[in-house]
Order: sequence, then structure tokens, then C-alpha cells
Amino acid sequence: MKKVDRWLLPDGIEEVLPEEASRVEGLRRRLVDLFQSWGYDYVIPPMVEFIDSLLTGSGEDAYLDTFKITDQLSGKTMGIRADITPQAARMDAHSLQREGLNRLCYAGHVMYTKPKGPLASRTPIQVGVELFGESGLDADIEVISLLLETLEAAGLPDLYIDIGHVGVYRALIEEAGISKEQEEVYFELLQAKSINSIESWVANNITDAKMAEWLLALPRLAGGNHILAEAKALFEDAPAEVSAAIDELEMIDSVLTERYPHSKRYFDLSELRGYHYYTGVIFGAFAPGLGNAIANGGRYDHVGEAFGRARAATGFAADLMSISRVTGRCELAPSGIYVEDSDADGIWAKIKQLRASGERVVCALAGQTAPYKHQHCNRKLIKQGEEFVVAPIK
Amino acid sequence: MKKVDRWLLPDGIEEVLPEEASRVEGLRRRLVDLFQSWGYDYVIPPMVEFIDSLLTGSGEDAYLDTFKITDQLSGKTMGIRADITPQAARMDAHSLQREGLNRLCYAGHVMYTKPKGPLASRTPIQVGVELFGESGLDADIEVISLLLETLEAAGLPDLYIDIGHVGVYRALIEEAGISKEQEEVYFELLQAKSINSIESWVANNITDAKMAEWLLALPRLAGGNHILAEAKALFEDAPAEVSAAIDELEMIDSVLTERYPHSKRYFDLSELRGYHYYTGVIFGAFAPGLGNAIANGGRYDHVGEAFGRARAATGFAADLMSISRVTGRCELAPSGIYVEDSDADGIWAKIKQLRASGERVVCALAGQTAPYKHQHCNRKLIKQGEEFVVAPIK
Repeated sequence: MKKVDRWLLPDGIEEVLPEEASRVEGLRRRLVDLFQSWGYDYVIPPMVEFIDSLLTGSGEDAYLDTFKITDQLSGKTMGIRADITPQAARMDAHSLQREGLNRLCYAGHVMYTKPKGPLASRTPIQVGVELFGESGLDADIEVISLLLETLEAAGLPDLYIDIGHVGVYRALIEEAGISKEQEEVYFELLQAKSINSIESWVANNITDAKMAEWLLALPRLAGGNHILAEAKALFEDAPAEVSAAIDELEMIDSVLTERYPHSKRYFDLSELRGYHYYTGVIFGAFAPGLGNAIANGGRYDHVGEAFGRARAATGFAADLMSISRVTGRCELAPSGIYVEDSDADGIWAKIKQLRASGERVVCALAGQTAPYKHQHCNRKLIKQGEEFVVAPIK
Repeated sequence: MKKVDRWLLPDGIEEVLPEEASRVEGLRRRLVDLFQSWGYDYVIPPMVEFIDSLLTGSGEDAYLDTFKITDQLSGKTMGIRADITPQAARMDAHSLQREGLNRLCYAGHVMYTKPKGPLASRTPIQVGVELFGESGLDADIEVISLLLETLEAAGLPDLYIDIGHVGVYRALIEEAGISKEQEEVYFELLQAKSINSIESWVANNITDAKMAEWLLALPRLAGGNHILAEAKALFEDAPAEVSAAIDELEMIDSVLTERYPHSKRYFDLSELRGYHYYTGVIFGAFAPGLGNAIANGGRYDHVGEAFGRARAATGFAADLMSISRVTGRCELAPSGIYVEDSDADGIWAKIKQLRASGERVVCALAGQTAPYKHQHCNRKLIKQGEEFVVAPIK
């Protein structure tokens, strides 16, 4: 690498410079404080683990997303985390082993081998919560409520959340009795919402008229809470799991209407993000005009099993950098107090006191010359009689 | 890996569980706030960079300490940072390009291929400050002062700091006119403070009587500020750089005596940690009974050169986990407010208000049973007449 190229960063690897970094740090603190105020205990999982622990319950995608390194001490393969949720599940199952509920939260870098989209970062900062040990709907409602308050705390109350339930699709597919290969095609078409292709696929693959109607209707069941009533009527004769899933969504809607009447909620019965991972209610938060969710979550009841302790689990994770960029909230410009001569008799005590009170106090060093000497300060510390006082810089 | 082994972490890779994690997070915030109150801008450098950028100005040790991964996008080798200082230097030289002074601070994970000692972590959390653009002693004094206040903020005012200057050794060795191989032997002996071996090495390698006296005396010149006066007399006829270095140490001592009269300062003219990296004053903070420094710093004026912008630079870095463990400061036990029925009419507004005021409010979920149901709460929210009030849990 030539000297002049040494400052290049790899594509999708970002550094965060002062103004944005202080915004991100402020947001990080606000969110961790919010999670803690809901009873979620802050934990710091490691940046790397043995690959088998990191990829528990995850599919091929997660394997390919994860950077692998060889541990010189053990000779085994370690992975740099691409997700913190499995780490929290491991901590719940093994390190903490709490009886009853366990609420955990975290904030830290994760890394992907390849960016998830054009211009996307390969080193996002993941913040999130996980709630272990409760299989009831109460837990789902709690984490969705906390997501809504997370958006509010980030200054994004206008984001909409999209709620689905993998139980609807799962039960219908089982009832349909089609092959794995057939299902994979339908799954892809459903994710792409290609209505025309779905129509011809259904015509060629499904003989039962009722089932054909259901599989055709699924991609259209997305919108406000009215679609839940429509779905209930449509799936009246479908397997009981389908109605049970819709009942859960209706209950969630009713509690959220009570708690957050102004929140924007959409329901989508064909939404299947992370289908192989999730086991129940799933949800995401979206900003208008931004394709990718800025937060994702749902129920994943099976993950702890690989660590020897199957536990009910639900939670969500968000990318702190994306939230910060969507928010675009501006912190106040730096406005410190400048000190020309930090060696003046008695001035050090005054400087300490100002800093302790939350002020930014910047001392002159020998080499400084105007116009850089004030270092973003709008005031200065000067001697007035026997006292040191803060005066504006003209 | 067997199911039961999935929870194993690699040696030297640590997770931080709730109680300690909240202590570490509190300390992290206190230190970042302190750095910012001195005018240091917070930045978030990336976890990985191209290896050439990461290892600029570092030696063979840093290369071996750094995990390497292949960037699938470019085919080039990236390194997982084992140190944040070179990243700050790159940001100063290229990304920020500020005229005049540039003060930066950071806090984040670093990783080593092998632990630096028995029981040492391979994933410490590095916090630190870097001051670019000032070659004068003022800058060294500022960062050492900030290190003393860092220890104070961490609740460790009793730690001692050890100050040295690589200029003394460098000037003497140049004057001695010995071969590189000879020097390497003396350097090793000096670092080990093996007085007997040094005596025989000097007898066999140094013919000039004055130089022999100097090289023999060097390992003994360690202790309180009185050794500076001794050194000045001893090195009267030595190269001018030696006296200049000792003058700098005397000046530092005088300012620190004024600013921090109770601080514990030691001087050590044979202290050469990171000799090939540092170019002037160096220093470290030590806890009694703990061999390794919990913070290290010094002047490294050449680093930015590789990025095309040679800048004066000084700073220090500390391991947040080590500081937190030495401090052992206990946060208050969790003491939240428990809510039996979060669906009660009108209770949600009260819960929101309590959380916003900084309280931890934990809601019951359907599956909870005594004795785990209170989730570390010492109070509960109950209805009294028309009002919700907080009452102690008996």
C-alpha cells in the first residue's frame, strides 16, 4: 500500500467523526437508560466466540455473514459476531441461569463479511433487548411497546411498525401438504409479493379450492388492523393455529391502541423476515422512504435449546447508526470556555470546578495561534479583580 | 462441538454480566464526559481496517497481536484493531485535517491474538485521549493532568504514576557508539533491571569511563523527584538532549505539584515501554500490587507521517475493565418498582412518568410466579383511591 493510500477504509467500514459520534453516543445512552428503566439488565457480550456458539439456531446466511478467525490458543475457529441475540441467549441459558424471567439489553458493534445492501455498513452498532422465560403474549406486547418507546426516545415517533406472525404461514403450508421444493418456490414468490406469479403457481400446484383461495389471499392481507377481521373470516375453516395467531395480533393491536393511540401500526400476514429463526409474532420498524427496517424483532422460542436450556424468548434489535441518521437530530454546537493561561495563580481550582459542573474548558497550549486558538469556544475565563470569571469571546 | 459445550468461551475472551456491566457502563460514561469537558471530541473508529493502516508506526509485536481477516470485497487483508491510537492518528491526518490543535477521545473494544499475561483479557475495552498538533511540553502536561483526573474520576486517587523520557536513553546510546546487536542486549538487561548483568555487560562493552558510569547508573535512576536532581548532576557532561529531557521532567513535576499536590509521582529514566513507538515523555499509572499498568501514554510524534501528515502527538489509553476491577466500586443494588397489572385503567401514563423520572419499573407478565415475580424490586405500584402510588414491598 502506498503511503498516500494508508488512510483508505475498506468499503462499508465506517468511522464516525466528532459531530455525529457525539450524537450517536447521546442516543446510545438514552436507549440503554430507557431499556434499564424497563427492567432490562445491561450486559457486555464478547466481540468473538467459538463459531458453534455464535451460529446456534442461525441458518446458512448467518454463517456466510460471519468473519472467521483461528484461535491460536485452542486451534478452533472463532467468529466475529454478526448478531448479538444468540450471545444473549447463551448468557441466559448458561452464564446467568436465572429462574423465571430474564430481561437483558446490550449495545455494541457487530460485523458482516458483506454489506446487506448498497451503501450499507458492514460494522453497524447493534442495540437491543431480549426477554427470556415467558411464552405468553404479554412478553410480545412488552417488547413491541418498548420498541415504540425506543422510537419515541430517538425522536422518531412517526415511524410505522409492521407486525406479522409466522404461525399463519406455517400452519397453512403444513395443511397444504406440498413438497419442500414446492414450498420454497411459493415462499420466494410471497416474499416478492409477485401476485401474478403466485396465481399461476397456485393454479399449477394446489388442487384444493379452499387452500388455493387461502394461498392466493395471503399476499394481499397487509394493511391497517381491518385486515385482521378480514383474515379471521377468510381463515374460518383453516387450521386452528391460523386463528390463534390472528387472535394474538388482534390482542396486540388492542393493547397498543390503549397505550400508544398515535402509533402507526401495519399488519402483514405474509411478512416472513427470518422465518426459519422466528417462531411467533414478528415485527419491524420502518422509516418512510427507507427500504430496510431500522429495527427488527420477534419471538424465537427455540434458540436457548442448543445451550442445553430451551427458553421462551422474544426481543428486538436496531442499528444505532441508522437510527441516528434517520433522526438527524443536531446536538448543540460546541461552546466551551477558553483559558489563555492555565498556569495563572489559583486558576486551576476554578477550571476543575467549571469542568465538574459540566462545562467544556479548553486550555491554551504554547503553539496555538489565532484564528485556531479558541478551539470552538464562545467564552473565556478571565481575571477580574481577585476573581476568575467567564466572559463572552467577542 | 457437543451441545453441552456450546456455552464455552475461548480463553481470555470475556463476557460481562449485569452487575459488573452496569459498573463498566457507568465508568465509561464518566470518563468520556471527563474527556469531553477538557475539550476532547468523541470519535468512533471502526473495529477493522486494512492491516497497513492499522499497523502504521507499530512494530512486529503489534503485527503478531492483530487478528487478520480477508476482505471479501477487495481481497485485501484487514486487521481487527489491537489498539485505537493509530486509528485516531489516521483520523487526525486524513479524515479531520483540522488546522492547529486536535483533541480526540474514544472508548471501544480492541482484540489481541494472545493474552498479554496470565488471566489477562484478549478483548479489553480501551478508553483514551490523543492530542495532535502541539510539540511543546504543555501538551504532555495536559495529558498527564488528564490521566490524574481520570484516576480520580474512577475513584482511584491513590494510584501512582510513573514518568520517564525516552530521550535520555536514546541520546546516551547514540553517544556510546555501540552496534545494534550490543544495544539490544543492554536494552533487555535494562528492562529487566538486572544490575549484576548490566555491570558485566558494561565492563565488556564500554571502554569510555564516563559512558560506563552513565550506563551503569541508568537503572538506578528511579524514584521520587529527587532522582531528577541526581541525574542532572550525573549527566552534566552528557549530550545536551539528556539534560533537555531531564529539564522537561522537572517542569512536569513542578506543574503537577502545583495542580495535584497529593498525586503520587515516580520518575524512572530507564523506563522504556514502547520505546520504538514513543519519542519523548512517557508515563503509566499503576495500582499497588498489580504488575501491569492500568493506563499508558506518551509522546509519539512520528505516527501521522505514514498517512501523509506528520503531526506532533501525545495521549494515553487505559483498559476500562481493569480500572473497573481495581476500583471495585459497587453501584446500588437494583431497586425497581413492580407493577402487578400493567393493563389497569390509566396506569400506563403513571408507569411512563416514573420511567421518565429515572425509575426502573418492571411489569408482571402472565407466567410469573413467586418468589421470582418481584424481579429485584423493592417497591410496587398500587392503586389508592383514584391515584396510583408507590409503596414498599414488605
